[in-house]
Amino acid sequence: MTQPRSAPRPASEPADAGRTAGRATFRAIVPAGGAGTRLWPLSRRTDPKFLHDLTASGRSLLQSTYARLRPLAEGVVVVTGAGHAAKVRSQLPDLPPGDVLAEPSPRDSMAAIALAAEVLRRRHPDEDLVVGSFAADHLIADEPAFTSAVTRAVAAARHDYLVAIGIAPDEPSTAFGYIRVGAGGPVAGVEPVEDFVEKPSPEVVAGYLAAGGYLWNAGMYLCRAERLRELLRRYQPALAAGIEEIAAAWDGPERAEVLERVWPGLPAIAIDHALSEPLSRDGGVAVVPADLGWSDIGDWDAIATALPEPSPVQAPPSGGRGAVRVLGPAGSADRVRAYGAEGSVVVPGEATVVVLGIPGAVVVNTGDAILVTTRDRAQHLKQVVDDLPREGPLR
Amino acid sequence: MTQPRSAPRPASEPADAGRTAGRATFRAIVPAGGAGTRLWPLSRRTDPKFLHDLTASGRSLLQSTYARLRPLAEGVVVVTGAGHAAKVRSQLPDLPPGDVLAEPSPRDSMAAIALAAEVLRRRHPDEDLVVGSFAADHLIADEPAFTSAVTRAVAAARHDYLVAIGIAPDEPSTAFGYIRVGAGGPVAGVEPVEDFVEKPSPEVVAGYLAAGGYLWNAGMYLCRAERLRELLRRYQPALAAGIEEIAAAWDGPERAEVLERVWPGLPAIAIDHALSEPLSRDGGVAVVPADLGWSDIGDWDAIATALPEPSPVQAPPSGGRGAVRVLGPAGSADRVRAYGAEGSVVVPGEATVVVLGIPGAVVVNTGDAILVTTRDRAQHLKQVVDDLPREGPLR
Repeated sequence: MTQPRSAPRPASEPADAGRTAGRATFRAIVPAGGAGTRLWPLSRRTDPKFLHDLTASGRSLLQSTYARLRPLAEGVVVVTGAGHAAKVRSQLPDLPPGDVLAEPSPRDSMAAIALAAEVLRRRHPDEDLVVGSFAADHLIADEPAFTSAVTRAVAAARHDYLVAIGIAPDEPSTAFGYIRVGAGGPVAGVEPVEDFVEKPSPEVVAGYLAAGGYLWNAGMYLCRAERLRELLRRYQPALAAGIEEIAAAWDGPERAEVLERVWPGLPAIAIDHALSEPLSRDGGVAVVPADLGWSDIGDWDAIATALPEPSPVQAPPSGGRGAVRVLGPAGSADRVRAYGAEGSVVVPGEATVVVLGIPGAVVVNTGDAILVTTRDRAQHLKQVVDDLPREGPLR
Repeated sequence: MTQPRSAPRPASEPADAGRTAGRATFRAIVPAGGAGTRLWPLSRRTDPKFLHDLTASGRSLLQSTYARLRPLAEGVVVVTGAGHAAKVRSQLPDLPPGDVLAEPSPRDSMAAIALAAEVLRRRHPDEDLVVGSFAADHLIADEPAFTSAVTRAVAAARHDYLVAIGIAPDEPSTAFGYIRVGAGGPVAGVEPVEDFVEKPSPEVVAGYLAAGGYLWNAGMYLCRAERLRELLRRYQPALAAGIEEIAAAWDGPERAEVLERVWPGLPAIAIDHALSEPLSRDGGVAVVPADLGWSDIGDWDAIATALPEPSPVQAPPSGGRGAVRVLGPAGSADRVRAYGAEGSVVVPGEATVVVLGIPGAVVVNTGDAILVTTRDRAQHLKQVVDDLPREGPLR
């Protein structure tokens, strides 16, 4: 591994060398945003997917994310749109209200993560703080593997790497970015990142999977808070200046005034473009390869896969009835009747839903809107939602 | 044509020979019944299909049937279930309330037609009355052809035939009974019936269409009221006795008492089995072959065929949008968005419905129930509805 210009410490050097001593802590940042058009009509601008229980677990994706991180982290902060803050607080009653940071408007992931990291750094000046960012709307089935991956990633972050958790691909998906992995990382089970590739073509992906050495970019990043500030100042100076001014005012009387003045001018950029890609070319990014049962629950096909096997209630009672996955509150499965509709997923809402003769159907009812498609066409939903009237309750 | 044992008069003999003179009239009977399970969830036991506008014509099937018959007939009576009488009267405000005959319970078509015919015969003793029975829930696209067929059928009925209007088959359907046609009928354009065949197998139907000389039995029958009474006394004496007792009391103070005592014991039998089949073997049935653009609107595929071509509103605005037929009040089409769903039929109810990637889809939303199937599977709906809880609002 080339020694990076941005100079993370090599593995041989103690993690806290040349640093003001402080209690080594880890705190989690949960960006909770995204309109989630591919899960319309359940997920909408005003009611995004992280607020929903999409896996029949009894918890929303946000609640599951919080429950997963709470035991691993000193604390958790959620960054969300101002319009969602009240719902987030109400779904997470254990979380102090001040740990939900409300953005006046979306400025993409870099601003959200940087704001939370800088607010945390200022709130905990006596800590040698590692922050990690984990989307509010992803699914992780293997929690022990997640705990192990985070532990390794925190260790690598203490060597001043920006550390991604990369997912071992189990299919040639073109829906994700890919991470090209090098060899010889700072900590056991952590590898250097050679490059990031954004959503490659099917041919390129097939080559990646054949060659090996590529991971899915799940957007999970960890970094020392001080190191993140330093990296931002180097790679995104305008963003860094704005975020530092806002964070300095966050817990004081000027927050609203500073936010109103500074936030709208911040560059809207994803952390991948802002930091990961340029820093990886300088050798400053590491990755923890992990097999977490991860899904970004990106479309209705992914939900069908994530939902539990159909209960016996859905088994064939009269010959033609097929197994189907049902999403909704208790009793929903009793209101779904599927015949020749194996592998379908149904969100019945308040209605009784009959699916007859469409295997792999997707039927989602929210009362004001009904989606009817198939699992293999569900990925094309974004275009449909983009066609809906831009204003109004359906978006 | 063999001279029938039941002895209709041959065409060479005047129609009113040997009969008490009376004004020659024609009155229409409209049996309005049938749960219509194959049009679930729009059509239900409590809200059967004849009450619905299923062709986007602006009128219910019942209203269309009435409007079609009113100019042809001296009068129209509707026979319906007691539970539907109020709705029938409210949909037909021109019809005197006494011309809606309410059956206490369903006793199939023979009882309904016989009751109406006998009530009419008694109400109009000075008429030489031909009655004709026309289901309330069929579609007839070619009204001039219908008028012509009825005119010929009335003429043949005056020769004391039971006269069916038979539909020239335009596809090898196994959903209908077939009429085998002879040659040399009593009136131009009217043929003798050799036999009735109930819903034959596909192989048999293919043979019929290859051979020619077969018509669909659309259940439209005409007969002189006096002749019908005479035929019933011969072929269905128990039914005849019961109906005559009820009809005698119908317009008097004892109707309720007699109905309650006699109606439940009446044989429940279709006119085809009760009269048409045995009488045809005796040479007493004639048929008017007709091409009426007829449909019994028997399933969602038939509705898709009957609905008007999609309006320009459904034309592709952005490439992937396909033509789709929409059923519902004004504005419904604006709430349907179909992509890759050519030939689909959608009843959106109050919702916005998106159909993505299912050509020939059937999506019917009534708020409390949603049906999702395809046009070629829609005929299997009966089994699904039979599986629904026997009691409750969904049936």
